[in-house]
Amino acid sequence: MAFETKATIATFGGKLLKLSHQSSSTGTPMAVNLYLPPSVASSASSTSPSRKVPVLIFLSGLTCTPDNCSEKGFFHAAASRHNIAIVYPDTSPRGASIAGEDESYDFGTGAGFYVDATQKPWSENYKMESYIVKELPEALFAPGSGGFGDVLDRTRVSITGHSMGGHGALSLYLKHPTLYRSASALAPICNPSQCAWGEKAFGGYLGEDKAAWKKHDATELVRGSDWKGKDDLRVLVDVGTGDNFYKQGQLLPENFERAVQEASVGGVKVNYREDYDHSYFFISTFAQDHVDHAAKYLL
Amino acid sequence: MAFETKATIATFGGKLLKLSHQSSSTGTPMAVNLYLPPSVASSASSTSPSRKVPVLIFLSGLTCTPDNCSEKGFFHAAASRHNIAIVYPDTSPRGASIAGEDESYDFGTGAGFYVDATQKPWSENYKMESYIVKELPEALFAPGSGGFGDVLDRTRVSITGHSMGGHGALSLYLKHPTLYRSASALAPICNPSQCAWGEKAFGGYLGEDKAAWKKHDATELVRGSDWKGKDDLRVLVDVGTGDNFYKQGQLLPENFERAVQEASVGGVKVNYREDYDHSYFFISTFAQDHVDHAAKYLL
Repeated sequence: MAFETKATIATFGGKLLKLSHQSSSTGTPMAVNLYLPPSVASSASSTSPSRKVPVLIFLSGLTCTPDNCSEKGFFHAAASRHNIAIVYPDTSPRGASIAGEDESYDFGTGAGFYVDATQKPWSENYKMESYIVKELPEALFAPGSGGFGDVLDRTRVSITGHSMGGHGALSLYLKHPTLYRSASALAPICNPSQCAWGEKAFGGYLGEDKAAWKKHDATELVRGSDWKGKDDLRVLVDVGTGDNFYKQGQLLPENFERAVQEASVGGVKVNYREDYDHSYFFISTFAQDHVDHAAKYLL
Repeated sequence: MAFETKATIATFGGKLLKLSHQSSSTGTPMAVNLYLPPSVASSASSTSPSRKVPVLIFLSGLTCTPDNCSEKGFFHAAASRHNIAIVYPDTSPRGASIAGEDESYDFGTGAGFYVDATQKPWSENYKMESYIVKELPEALFAPGSGGFGDVLDRTRVSITGHSMGGHGALSLYLKHPTLYRSASALAPICNPSQCAWGEKAFGGYLGEDKAAWKKHDATELVRGSDWKGKDDLRVLVDVGTGDNFYKQGQLLPENFERAVQEASVGGVKVNYREDYDHSYFFISTFAQDHVDHAAKYLL
């Protein structure tokens, strides 16, 4: 449904819009932040189709709302320079009134894991994959006053994310290769089937049949035969070596790298950044690299 | 007293240190954040005196701790590029146990206004001017393991700040012209004697004799005869025209500009940024300009 604009904030030569819309995927209102770069931020320039800008979707991590990365991720400096819009979806439905929804930081509210839940009671509202790949783009790219299709170019979209959102970016890119021109991830959960966060979330949302998990696991998706002999991937990953979740085996980027190597797929670059942790101090440091990576394929 | 390091965080090629020390000015522990740029962030390079880096002090606004601007101000991108350290002091003593200290957001805790209070009960602890201009630099520039004098250059210091901290930066620069090579401010309270925030704070800390207020008011300090015929100031100010506190007359940059003009002092640049508000979205957008301004006089 059409967006309601809750706030418009000038930043880095563009505008950050705090939006909300009613989602049919989740059955709840969903908050979205949208950074419009300078060329399309003023209404005067919004009517020229030749001025449409490409879009980078940022999927946030556990517990985050669209606001966290908008405030602390520092993506807007590079997005302003490249003239790329940034979309910050929320990490789950909120207020679905499911028992237990707010009990843990890593399941339920703030922890949708970008999958469509198949297990009750979550399957009614926790449809984050459908929301991200279908409903949200349709709403964003709608023309006229209801959406932003007059200024955003639906043919040029890339995806990135952090932690759980890095899992989302990598897995959605691999599942839906025609939707995104490139993907990147900061400290992503690379092999959710094999880590505690993923086991809890996938078990709860998708059930105990681990075959279903593989369709949402970047490492397993790369192993899948679909990618063999295809064009190179366009994937950038950064991980901090001081990241406690990396050390605890929640991220497993080595598993992803091994799968990439075994599948003989090119185009994947994984950087290990000495001493960096899991926080926005890490994200903001490398945000520009991830916008630059997307810009290579979007501009 | 010597600093205790509570956390060390890799960011923008350098390190953000979360420090604490016991202050004799305030009689309380004081938190300080220190961003060390790449060349001095690793201990290996910390012993070469020729590698000392200059320092930019950032004074925060009402309600802020050292953490807010460290997380959301984005000074580190430019500080890393210029190899400048950034110091984030706290905005007041905390936990002085004075009745009423925590009752308002704009007086007491988080609202020290960078003056030495002369009125009881505040005069015992609220000595923020002494802390910022004397005690904190002495502690920071102490050599050896107690301070950072082996890596920070005490002869090259500039000062900047936001809102109440912009008042602090401008007034301390004008009061102590030998301490700082330049000053700048984002959305500063330029004429505290004439606005509601300043009247409340100066009345409470300095008493009802408005003559005492003038010594802490950037607009009045520029009017003072001291500056006539002296070298040009080195001052950059940015204010957003969408800033509600500007619109309410809390900032009064026009009064400051008029005083500068009437005193025939050069070297002051005030930019009015269309639509920008009072938030970190504004600060982060122009942070680089303020580091660049300081770099002109520090490097």
